[in-house]
Amino acid sequence: MPLDIKHGYSPRKFSVVGERPLRPDGIEKVTGRARFGADAFAPGMLVGKVLRSPHAHARIRSIDSSKAEALPGVKAVVTRADFAKEVPEEHADVLENVMAGAKALYEGHAVAAVAATSASIAKKALKLIEVDYEVLPHVTDVEKAMEPDAPVLHDHIFTEGVEPAPTKPSNVVQRIEVGHGDVEKGFAEAEVIVEHDFKTEATHQGYIEPHACLANMSADGSGELWGCTQGHFMVRDTCAALIGVDVSRLRVTASEIGGGFGGKTTVFLEPTALALSRKAGKPVKLVMTREEVFLASGPTSSTAIHVKIGAKKDGSITAAYAELKYQGGAFAGSPVEMGAMTAFACYDLENVKCVGWDVVTNRPKQAAYRAPGAPMSAFAVESCVSELAGKLGIDPIDLRLKNAAKEGTKSSYGPTFGPVGLVETLEAAKAHPHYSAPLGPNQGRGVACGFWFNFGGQTCTSLNVNIDGTCTLSVGTPDIGGSRASMCMMAAEELGIPYEKVKAIVADTSSLGYNDVTDGSRVTFASGLATITAAREAKKKLCQRAAAMWGIPEDAVEWSEGYARPAGPNAGEFEPLSIADIAAVAGSTGGPIAGHYEVSADGAGPSFATHIVDSECDPETGRVWVNRYTVVQDAGKAIHPAYVEGQFQGGAVQGIGWVLNECYMYNDKGKMENAGFLDYRIPVASDLPMIDTVIVEVPNPGHPYGVRGVGETSIVPPLAAVANSVSAAVGVRLTELPMSPPRVLKALENKG
Amino acid sequence: MPLDIKHGYSPRKFSVVGERPLRPDGIEKVTGRARFGADAFAPGMLVGKVLRSPHAHARIRSIDSSKAEALPGVKAVVTRADFAKEVPEEHADVLENVMAGAKALYEGHAVAAVAATSASIAKKALKLIEVDYEVLPHVTDVEKAMEPDAPVLHDHIFTEGVEPAPTKPSNVVQRIEVGHGDVEKGFAEAEVIVEHDFKTEATHQGYIEPHACLANMSADGSGELWGCTQGHFMVRDTCAALIGVDVSRLRVTASEIGGGFGGKTTVFLEPTALALSRKAGKPVKLVMTREEVFLASGPTSSTAIHVKIGAKKDGSITAAYAELKYQGGAFAGSPVEMGAMTAFACYDLENVKCVGWDVVTNRPKQAAYRAPGAPMSAFAVESCVSELAGKLGIDPIDLRLKNAAKEGTKSSYGPTFGPVGLVETLEAAKAHPHYSAPLGPNQGRGVACGFWFNFGGQTCTSLNVNIDGTCTLSVGTPDIGGSRASMCMMAAEELGIPYEKVKAIVADTSSLGYNDVTDGSRVTFASGLATITAAREAKKKLCQRAAAMWGIPEDAVEWSEGYARPAGPNAGEFEPLSIADIAAVAGSTGGPIAGHYEVSADGAGPSFATHIVDSECDPETGRVWVNRYTVVQDAGKAIHPAYVEGQFQGGAVQGIGWVLNECYMYNDKGKMENAGFLDYRIPVASDLPMIDTVIVEVPNPGHPYGVRGVGETSIVPPLAAVANSVSAAVGVRLTELPMSPPRVLKALENKG
Repeated sequence: MPLDIKHGYSPRKFSVVGERPLRPDGIEKVTGRARFGADAFAPGMLVGKVLRSPHAHARIRSIDSSKAEALPGVKAVVTRADFAKEVPEEHADVLENVMAGAKALYEGHAVAAVAATSASIAKKALKLIEVDYEVLPHVTDVEKAMEPDAPVLHDHIFTEGVEPAPTKPSNVVQRIEVGHGDVEKGFAEAEVIVEHDFKTEATHQGYIEPHACLANMSADGSGELWGCTQGHFMVRDTCAALIGVDVSRLRVTASEIGGGFGGKTTVFLEPTALALSRKAGKPVKLVMTREEVFLASGPTSSTAIHVKIGAKKDGSITAAYAELKYQGGAFAGSPVEMGAMTAFACYDLENVKCVGWDVVTNRPKQAAYRAPGAPMSAFAVESCVSELAGKLGIDPIDLRLKNAAKEGTKSSYGPTFGPVGLVETLEAAKAHPHYSAPLGPNQGRGVACGFWFNFGGQTCTSLNVNIDGTCTLSVGTPDIGGSRASMCMMAAEELGIPYEKVKAIVADTSSLGYNDVTDGSRVTFASGLATITAAREAKKKLCQRAAAMWGIPEDAVEWSEGYARPAGPNAGEFEPLSIADIAAVAGSTGGPIAGHYEVSADGAGPSFATHIVDSECDPETGRVWVNRYTVVQDAGKAIHPAYVEGQFQGGAVQGIGWVLNECYMYNDKGKMENAGFLDYRIPVASDLPMIDTVIVEVPNPGHPYGVRGVGETSIVPPLAAVANSVSAAVGVRLTELPMSPPRVLKALENKG
Repeated sequence: MPLDIKHGYSPRKFSVVGERPLRPDGIEKVTGRARFGADAFAPGMLVGKVLRSPHAHARIRSIDSSKAEALPGVKAVVTRADFAKEVPEEHADVLENVMAGAKALYEGHAVAAVAATSASIAKKALKLIEVDYEVLPHVTDVEKAMEPDAPVLHDHIFTEGVEPAPTKPSNVVQRIEVGHGDVEKGFAEAEVIVEHDFKTEATHQGYIEPHACLANMSADGSGELWGCTQGHFMVRDTCAALIGVDVSRLRVTASEIGGGFGGKTTVFLEPTALALSRKAGKPVKLVMTREEVFLASGPTSSTAIHVKIGAKKDGSITAAYAELKYQGGAFAGSPVEMGAMTAFACYDLENVKCVGWDVVTNRPKQAAYRAPGAPMSAFAVESCVSELAGKLGIDPIDLRLKNAAKEGTKSSYGPTFGPVGLVETLEAAKAHPHYSAPLGPNQGRGVACGFWFNFGGQTCTSLNVNIDGTCTLSVGTPDIGGSRASMCMMAAEELGIPYEKVKAIVADTSSLGYNDVTDGSRVTFASGLATITAAREAKKKLCQRAAAMWGIPEDAVEWSEGYARPAGPNAGEFEPLSIADIAAVAGSTGGPIAGHYEVSADGAGPSFATHIVDSECDPETGRVWVNRYTVVQDAGKAIHPAYVEGQFQGGAVQGIGWVLNECYMYNDKGKMENAGFLDYRIPVASDLPMIDTVIVEVPNPGHPYGVRGVGETSIVPPLAAVANSVSAAVGVRLTELPMSPPRVLKALENKG
């Protein structure tokens, strides 16, 4: 029953959209009353704990849990045997990661779990589980893992995408390639070439809330789960597969979320909690420690990247090439493909080629981290572009403007761009006072651009009109960045009522149709589109009811500014009816009024950003400060500008941490040496300047209000922008992350 | 966007409907894991307690809560001042009942409430609240309350429906009248007249779970509430009015319910819990004690009834008259109108008249109790009908058959009946072995008929198809009698998939459109209708997707037996696609597949029952046993026959308690003397025979499967049926309830 409603953009004057109302979850969060994953409670619930491998790579010869099971207070011990025997191929690695089978593949890999009446009993029980390990050689570095004699993690991985097809298993999952034109020809035409090797380290999303969930399985095979996640429908479907029940038997409720940034787009504890609950016959709560979050959730890939760019003296880029090696931890699926697709997406190139390698190592399986794969390749590419500008004596913004992707550009990853806003961000950056402000000694300025696709995807939304004319909006995408506010604003805008009259909730998986994970910067676009369409359906019904109340034809009623009004020949004949007037009598005019919309949203609009950074280096210690930072980004349309600015700022800050401080440090046993916030240093307020923001709005033609999505593009430029500023301050190009004081000092010494 | 779907009945062969699958909530309930109202938990929650009037009638001169507020651990004290100052008229009495204003109107009437960090502190705080009462004269008996010099509860009640309009306030709220024809003329034509006065006592629904809720108000004025109720949307809307917030700001979740039977169709604790939480800034849980349930929730009316029936010698009833006096407790709204409308609804009468009086007394405000108002009037009428049969020497079933309402009968309350099943139940009862079984000494047999309208009302349902082809059904009517099972069965039937593949949940108020309370035996009819229609919408979309997958027109696809099949010229051209086949790829064919339906359901089908009872009386003690009991009732269509039989049995058992044991006993201070299950005696298993059941199925033309609704009709005949059997056993007609041993003994003595 599709509605005849266009999703496409049409210009309009906004009343609610673009305002900055108070965030609906703000008070609950600052007063400590918001309920996060660990706040769930069920009568009689048990405490679960997970036993994790102390070895980076080891065969599990046997697990003897009999002593643990005999401990009073222990109600269940689960191992891999307690999960589904067979799972669909797309879930096989997830299952293996959630609970080790034949081998432990990284330090922290779950091998068993217990549920007990108290945390102390559960901890004691973990120590009583006897695991007979055969320790195997390990590898954690991406390039070492690619060597022919590297320890091999999986017998079943034979590199795909290479000729001839390999006959031996390896850690290299596949070779991918994107691009077009002839790069050899392009380099031959080049008058200047810049070429560098880069290395980036694995970083963690650093969300404040550790993974936590409460599972409650019934003896009838159905169950409920509460927890923090970016996608409770994904949790439901994955858990159903992993524990072997019908999807309809599980009901998952998403708690408030204390940060995710991509790291909560898969399952870690949830299937284990369900398996424990099923075996114990009681509710079971599982909460990770911070150490477990570092060791056993999903950081991003570490990478080794080679970039080569050739240009004419006038700045026209003739060829661009990158080779990307991304390790994705112990399982296939590093974001190297997205790294390759985004690497040169900012440029309008005739000859471009990216080769990517997806590599497994004895590290935790990587998870998405804000624009997964893109910041690293942008770091490498944008470093080279700025160096090219230096070599050519062209202003780095001008060089980028000269080569910028725009409407009609055949992108480096295939599609031809529609209207996009890179040029607008570059021009706004160039015009910004920051760009022309003077610099002091030991200071340097960097700029860099970034790109993200933005996603669409499956989304369902319901809008229900209450008897007093207020509306309740039911969405299925967890609110990680203010989406409840922006959804309410879009519904209010569409209905012509105040923002305060609409209240959004994140419905559980049994109360709404399937929603893809909150990721890819998709929610304001896709859930927004579904919300607007559902509101339009409700408006249509409101007009039908008004027509019935007036006794005139449906098409003789129009909705404007919050009222049903008689239109055409009947205009002015009846007093307009408000949504409250119509809702008050809905019971006698046909029943409750609602709008629903289910969609696989396409039409997501790519977004671009340009960042300007000033850094200062202490030449004696190598310590770097970021003195000034400006984010200029195309939002398409900023529904709630304060949230948009927050996304811009947050992306910049996470990027600053990535480039200057953050890093997974492994010792020679393959063990992480800094699994805690004391040793893994994320930036705090005192490390940072105010992050200035400029919102550019080039409407996305695929969204009724022009929304693109803003969460991810903002983390793409910072690595390169800061690196360019540091390189300028230090006077030598740095190509390895993090740019920690020892590394900067060494660069200064080498330059010296 | 109404679908072109007929709601009306059409005969069909059923695959799932009529089967007896396991109840979906059974295991959770028998293992103690189902979460009821008191099982809700929120971090930091407080314990609430309510201060209640010790007086039946008293003016509240002042309330001083300063000492209670000063007690360490007390976080809030609320009185009437903490509720909305003005509420819409329809909520005024509810507010007054929830928290007394100027007067306490019955023993147990709430006058204040506290929230504290522990139950003991809360109890101590209650004792520190100083209420200055001016005790007023009281009245608890319905006939005494009607006397001109009775203490008057309300200054604003002036009897409506009488001429001349009264000038003085009174306890008589209104006089109502239903009927048609000329009863005076009818009685003049009568050859035999039977006439009696009857009295019935107030009884309680006797649900096992006391009222309980947990409220959590945010400082931003929005809030959540969990609790046991028959209608969480009603709770939301009422609470929003009583505490003065927009409906959209409240989210109410219904817990499992440990019985309601009509007694949980209004609010008692919920607004108070919200007011306490708002004031304390913390979650607050309120749970009634059993004593509070008796004193301060809603029992049914006590009544005084006069019935007069005249007939020809051949058994044709020429006139029927009843005067009904129902006290509804301290506020207007006894179910006397429904008592009057149902009194003679079983009969096809030319001359019929019922006069009803709605009276207030110093008792707790009555709440609905299963077929509210009907059992009492049926007790009186059916006692007289059986006596008439005796006088005429006609078999009591034959007399009823002679006068039975049927299709085309102008009912005593107005509408003309469509197809109804009274005759069918009478014929089935007459043919039942029970009716011809021999009786022993001191035994008697009684029969009686009963009628209930069955309700429709506002209902919203959503059905979502999951990726594995299973379905999740979201309904908004709390499951008090197996509705989750019957909804799943109807959805499965419609989709042609197994029952186990559909899972129903009761959605919270923010996740679904408004649903009327689970009452009036409306849910299997109305939510069932909405479920079937939503499933039909989903089927239509499934066919559209199949058409798209095959590349053929939508109307060239039909759905049968769980598969989309090419139809017409394309028949056999493609392999049929199951719901799982289509769901697996829904993301790429348009998005998630769902069906929704919002409706104000009309077309509810009235139902009738005939009960047969054998009783035995111990002439020495007056103790009565029910030896054998058979319920014959028209279900329209029994979706899940085991649940239907359970409803039949439960209604009979509650009726047996009402007629033999149960009674609110008041002393001369207007205080209830038996506020606990030790002294207020409900039947237990050892008091009862097996209740035999016969399901008659005369389809309701207003429902696709013919469903009528079964929950309430079953409690209408028992009072009279048992009374008729006891009167037969004792040899003298008893007209007052309960027929307790002293009363029976006295009747025996008087007869002696």
